[in-house]
Amino acid sequence: MTLVLNNEEVERLLPIEVAMDVQEPAYRDLVAGEAISPARRDMLIPLPGPEKSVYEFKSMPAVYPRKKVAVWRVNSDFLTWHNRAGTVRREKVPKAPGNRHVGLVLLFSMETGELISVFPDGVIQRLRVGAANGIAAKRLAREDASTVGLLGSGWQAGAQLMAICAARPIKRIRAFSPNAEHCKKFAKEWSERLRLPVEPVASGREAVEGADIAIAATNSAQPVFEEAWMKPGMFLTSIRAFELDRGTLQGADILVIHSRESEPLSFVSGGDRSVVPELASGGAKKKGGVVDWGELPELGELLAGKVAGRSKPEQVTCFVNNIGLSLQFAACGIAVYERAREQGVGREMPGEWFTEKEHP
Amino acid sequence: MTLVLNNEEVERLLPIEVAMDVQEPAYRDLVAGEAISPARRDMLIPLPGPEKSVYEFKSMPAVYPRKKVAVWRVNSDFLTWHNRAGTVRREKVPKAPGNRHVGLVLLFSMETGELISVFPDGVIQRLRVGAANGIAAKRLAREDASTVGLLGSGWQAGAQLMAICAARPIKRIRAFSPNAEHCKKFAKEWSERLRLPVEPVASGREAVEGADIAIAATNSAQPVFEEAWMKPGMFLTSIRAFELDRGTLQGADILVIHSRESEPLSFVSGGDRSVVPELASGGAKKKGGVVDWGELPELGELLAGKVAGRSKPEQVTCFVNNIGLSLQFAACGIAVYERAREQGVGREMPGEWFTEKEHP
Repeated sequence: MTLVLNNEEVERLLPIEVAMDVQEPAYRDLVAGEAISPARRDMLIPLPGPEKSVYEFKSMPAVYPRKKVAVWRVNSDFLTWHNRAGTVRREKVPKAPGNRHVGLVLLFSMETGELISVFPDGVIQRLRVGAANGIAAKRLAREDASTVGLLGSGWQAGAQLMAICAARPIKRIRAFSPNAEHCKKFAKEWSERLRLPVEPVASGREAVEGADIAIAATNSAQPVFEEAWMKPGMFLTSIRAFELDRGTLQGADILVIHSRESEPLSFVSGGDRSVVPELASGGAKKKGGVVDWGELPELGELLAGKVAGRSKPEQVTCFVNNIGLSLQFAACGIAVYERAREQGVGREMPGEWFTEKEHP
Repeated sequence: MTLVLNNEEVERLLPIEVAMDVQEPAYRDLVAGEAISPARRDMLIPLPGPEKSVYEFKSMPAVYPRKKVAVWRVNSDFLTWHNRAGTVRREKVPKAPGNRHVGLVLLFSMETGELISVFPDGVIQRLRVGAANGIAAKRLAREDASTVGLLGSGWQAGAQLMAICAARPIKRIRAFSPNAEHCKKFAKEWSERLRLPVEPVASGREAVEGADIAIAATNSAQPVFEEAWMKPGMFLTSIRAFELDRGTLQGADILVIHSRESEPLSFVSGGDRSVVPELASGGAKKKGGVVDWGELPELGELLAGKVAGRSKPEQVTCFVNNIGLSLQFAACGIAVYERAREQGVGREMPGEWFTEKEHP
């Protein structure tokens, strides 16, 4: 049988603490060569029309032997780019019936080969990103860190707050986003969810001033954190490769990245890379301003003790979630599936639909 | 809505002539840069136990703008290697309930993003291979070619016969396989299906002697066609990179391959490549004996008129289907889907199961 779950179920089944717990061993296995997580492949097709728009097919397979599971995460998306509040933002256009997006996680059993589960990626996607930064915070933030400055008020920003609150004894959060209305609403929602004061403020500088932890969780294509805002003892964290400016990345005492597999492999039909701003400008490497992601220590190496974490309270430490790993979907996905089976959650599809007598 | 089909339906919906017709433009689009078909990625996990065995997760995504479709073909397989009749054979072990295999084709719409269809890959897999060789035969075999020598009597061999009969006015077929019993059964079945004499013979040499066309369609890891068997005017074709020996490949007047993307990208957990004989021996390049697949003309270039086909009756021409292309599943898959919709075939799954409100 193949289990179908929805985003609400995934959210209930995967608290951020669980996502953090199940992702940790996956990073260590990857460093030890005991798991496979190839670079994401982005296939981009410029679409006709007056507006710059692209169909994107993103393929992320992985195999996680520890949990006897293989995974495929796919996005079948439509992208546009807009100038909003002075920064270029990439936006996804929901074109499926009912204005819906298409992103899926498929789990396969390494014991029978079967497709064991299918669910949308929206919730697990932000949880696995939040979990990565939360795991990093447990090694890199001061133990007594209690104040957070948040840049961004979108989908990923909430998961970052959940994760940081699971990692450290957070007491106060200040949030900034160029869309003041949205930021206010976000602050209200998350004050209630976290039972902590989340205060909307008028600038990025104001959000991070005096904060022990600064979190960038935006979809900006330009840096949103400036070197001048760095203070001794801070832990800085971002969910994209280029949200922290060059000076910040170079000035940190400890800089750890998510993966040295720093760029997805992109394939553009027609060969016209200029339709995709990120590609036209040369990819994450150039934008980050860091000379070479390929030289930096990874989260898995930090967890495996191969590189040192914070050793002094005054150090500025930094974790850049420069790119996602498909293995995260395996680790979090199988946790969702196991919990769903335990709790009898979800809908079944006949297993024979997805198996065959014929030799493939 | 997402349409589920089974192998019997796929077989009815996709006659080999249709598979050949719909694959042709895909090859031309690929050569023109108007489609995306990245190399297959094989993720291999050696399994514990007394027998050499491996879990294999094969990922093949592609995007085919002409038909507004993206595709993912996956295999979630268990491999073993056995010595049978003097040659090492790779075998797949069906471990899903009811001794079934797991190989799937998923189609996504480039208009809405949706998962529009899911079906097993067993039938389409051999049809797309057969179609490739059939398309090559239409350019490379003599127009009056009427006799075939077939090496192999398995799953792929039947599709090769269908394709060659669609491409040329075939009157007689001789087949050889090391398993005489199986070969006899195969010959009987295909005599009836093709309404042509298919005669089982006792050796490979006997099968190809006097034949206008020699087809290798085995799962042997060693060459099965010898240079000494080549005759002027012959068209030789194989479904794997190393079924024709080095002398044959070097001696052909025209040699066209399926794709210069000659090796899948392999990832082995634990780093122990020796568990997989094909990897341990250095891959297809070494085994084929051809100096460099990367220098040879592709089928798409032949179809686009960028390289010449047969110009004289006495030429020996050769097509090596050295590796599959994920784009074949897009071209054949959307043809299956369109025909299924026209004919009202298949079972529906609710579209909302595979879409989401949440921004992924």
